[in-house]
Amino acid sequence: MKEFFKVTDLDTVLEWPSRFARVERETIPITEALSRILAKDIVSDVNLPDFSRSIMDGFAVAASSTFGASEANPAYLNVPFTIAMGESPDFSIRPGEAARISTGGMLPKGADSVVMVEHTDVLDETTIEVYRSVAPGQNIIEIGEDFHASDTVLFKGQKLRPQEIGLLAAFGVAAVPVYRRPVVGIISSGDEVLPIHEIPTSGEIRDINSYTLSGQVMASGGIPRQLGIVKDSYEALLETCRKGLDQSDMVLVSGGSSVGMRDFTVEVLSRLPQAEILAHGISISPGKPTILAKIGDKQFWGLPGHVVSAMVVFHAVVRPFLEHIGGLEASHRRSKACYARLSRNIPSAQGRVDYVRVKLTEKRDTLIAEPVLGKSGLIHTMVRADGLIQIDKNTEGLDQDTEVRVELLL
Amino acid sequence: MKEFFKVTDLDTVLEWPSRFARVERETIPITEALSRILAKDIVSDVNLPDFSRSIMDGFAVAASSTFGASEANPAYLNVPFTIAMGESPDFSIRPGEAARISTGGMLPKGADSVVMVEHTDVLDETTIEVYRSVAPGQNIIEIGEDFHASDTVLFKGQKLRPQEIGLLAAFGVAAVPVYRRPVVGIISSGDEVLPIHEIPTSGEIRDINSYTLSGQVMASGGIPRQLGIVKDSYEALLETCRKGLDQSDMVLVSGGSSVGMRDFTVEVLSRLPQAEILAHGISISPGKPTILAKIGDKQFWGLPGHVVSAMVVFHAVVRPFLEHIGGLEASHRRSKACYARLSRNIPSAQGRVDYVRVKLTEKRDTLIAEPVLGKSGLIHTMVRADGLIQIDKNTEGLDQDTEVRVELLL
Repeated sequence: MKEFFKVTDLDTVLEWPSRFARVERETIPITEALSRILAKDIVSDVNLPDFSRSIMDGFAVAASSTFGASEANPAYLNVPFTIAMGESPDFSIRPGEAARISTGGMLPKGADSVVMVEHTDVLDETTIEVYRSVAPGQNIIEIGEDFHASDTVLFKGQKLRPQEIGLLAAFGVAAVPVYRRPVVGIISSGDEVLPIHEIPTSGEIRDINSYTLSGQVMASGGIPRQLGIVKDSYEALLETCRKGLDQSDMVLVSGGSSVGMRDFTVEVLSRLPQAEILAHGISISPGKPTILAKIGDKQFWGLPGHVVSAMVVFHAVVRPFLEHIGGLEASHRRSKACYARLSRNIPSAQGRVDYVRVKLTEKRDTLIAEPVLGKSGLIHTMVRADGLIQIDKNTEGLDQDTEVRVELLL
Repeated sequence: MKEFFKVTDLDTVLEWPSRFARVERETIPITEALSRILAKDIVSDVNLPDFSRSIMDGFAVAASSTFGASEANPAYLNVPFTIAMGESPDFSIRPGEAARISTGGMLPKGADSVVMVEHTDVLDETTIEVYRSVAPGQNIIEIGEDFHASDTVLFKGQKLRPQEIGLLAAFGVAAVPVYRRPVVGIISSGDEVLPIHEIPTSGEIRDINSYTLSGQVMASGGIPRQLGIVKDSYEALLETCRKGLDQSDMVLVSGGSSVGMRDFTVEVLSRLPQAEILAHGISISPGKPTILAKIGDKQFWGLPGHVVSAMVVFHAVVRPFLEHIGGLEASHRRSKACYARLSRNIPSAQGRVDYVRVKLTEKRDTLIAEPVLGKSGLIHTMVRADGLIQIDKNTEGLDQDTEVRVELLL
């Protein structure tokens, strides 16, 4: 057997993202911040809410005025006041008194709870019967119950979901510092690869990887920049890589699966100043012939040409690097994984991490993961797949009915 | 007890999306089509691939030339040819012959398999030793192995992931018909609600719902159009709703939690021509005081004012309607759910569907779902949550360690 690669362990490679600096920050309106990565901690400057609010329609009272009230023995309260929404009441409630209040209304002084309107009857304009007692604090949100002043409410490196954006709104943060989206140059290589608007003749195929990888870059928070197809030519590859590195934070070259092209890639890397090859081959299947180089502070990835291999390597290896430079803190990464039961045995070779495509089905409250078999050049296998399972390098295979962790391909 | 609502079962409401028509289609470049919904079936016009390709670097052979080959007893083959990438070989392979071929190269006539270069040794320029036999079809992708001509390769109503976009590229589909993104008008209401750039005085709060709902609309494939805050005024609400309905496919009015505002909403609906109230209250918690009306072919949603309630109702009820009009077929919806073990008992009332926020942690290959407790006016509970679990209306609660289905809030 010939040894083509100096293969690096996947675990080792996955320790390297921090070798690359994060991209710069920018400040953008929160209406454009969905799925962006927060670039500084957000500290609350006020209590939220900063007044006690009712969470029901009803009557603000001192709870003690209702103690012992029941259907058989209601409490009778005097209602001299109505609280207008959005206003700070300028009166106080005394024992035996109540003020009409709506959901979201501010509690007046002297009130510590709200009786729901459903538990009262109006006797006349200023008198109600109360059928149930309330405890202090009941049916209200107290000052600072959501957040206290000077709490850190959101953290640098966190991805912004709708609720985090709502939280920023609550604190009046209309524009937010985030990391800019990393730019990823994408190059397809190979004499057999054609632009998609051309009609292939026998022996040629259309460029798929530029499109799958662009989609994966977008889904991971980056901006793809397609740099086109490079034919098997050292000069063309060097020029396009230089251009890509100038314009991007990282460059992905897929294909170059011919021996000549692979040699070109290594030759190109040797010609680029400051280029350091970190991995030439990774112990992962599919995707072993992956190259990672550090060029200044930029990443250069040589990805396999097979569409599934390139997608798997992106998912398992490139993505953590892209997310890292894009500011996402590993501790804030939200899992998109689930556990499922394997529908059949899967063999696997020791000494490498295997990624297996699976289709998920829900059967009687259980998720079943069915391996999608097929060569790594067949895109239909990725179209059929809902997720990937990872088989550890020290495992020889997995038995049917094993509970496996499935990373969702959403 | 007073009856405010004519409450409709959640299951019943969830049967109604098809009462609303889907939005129109548009054709867009595939580079912009990530996460969009395909508007027609895509049928393959060619075999993919349309020639037999090698998936290894090696030698194209007739498998029979290698039968019986082993380390001890190699086969000796004559190598008169080299196959160039992207070209259709103009020669045939005979028994005992081989042609050098790279990954992705086209097999010549007479060859039905590829011997990996790792299983050969070069003896001289035109002779190799082969140490292993191959079977017909081995190390190649056959004509049509990915897709056959006239296969339906993608389906109308399917969401486009990176792999589906790659598939379109493979077939030369550079522009693809998708449903346009539905436009959703978003109105916040209430005298106490302030625009986020203003500083609230006691009794006032900033508008959160416009931002959380905008984010949820975007995450569900829609385009949010914020129509601002309407104070408790019948005329203002009517005017803003009319404007919203003119400009949007659906309108969400959140808040209006005061009794007056709720009355206004119903009054406004009664004044809009063609308005039909489908649900005035839904058996869901949080979120019971939800209104759904059909106005012509548009949806009007009155959502609760509490931020968590509005988000839960959006997630559980509004989203399926939005996805429906946006073209997503229910059968093509990809689950974002996982199963997890409940960390503690949760009580629940019968007769309604309860949604409980949970935080997920992974412990020794098991997901644990820990309920995030707190009132539905507290946004921090949604910020802490990774997902929602649903407790059926016929269930009184769930015991610790029950396996629950968690819908991920990604």
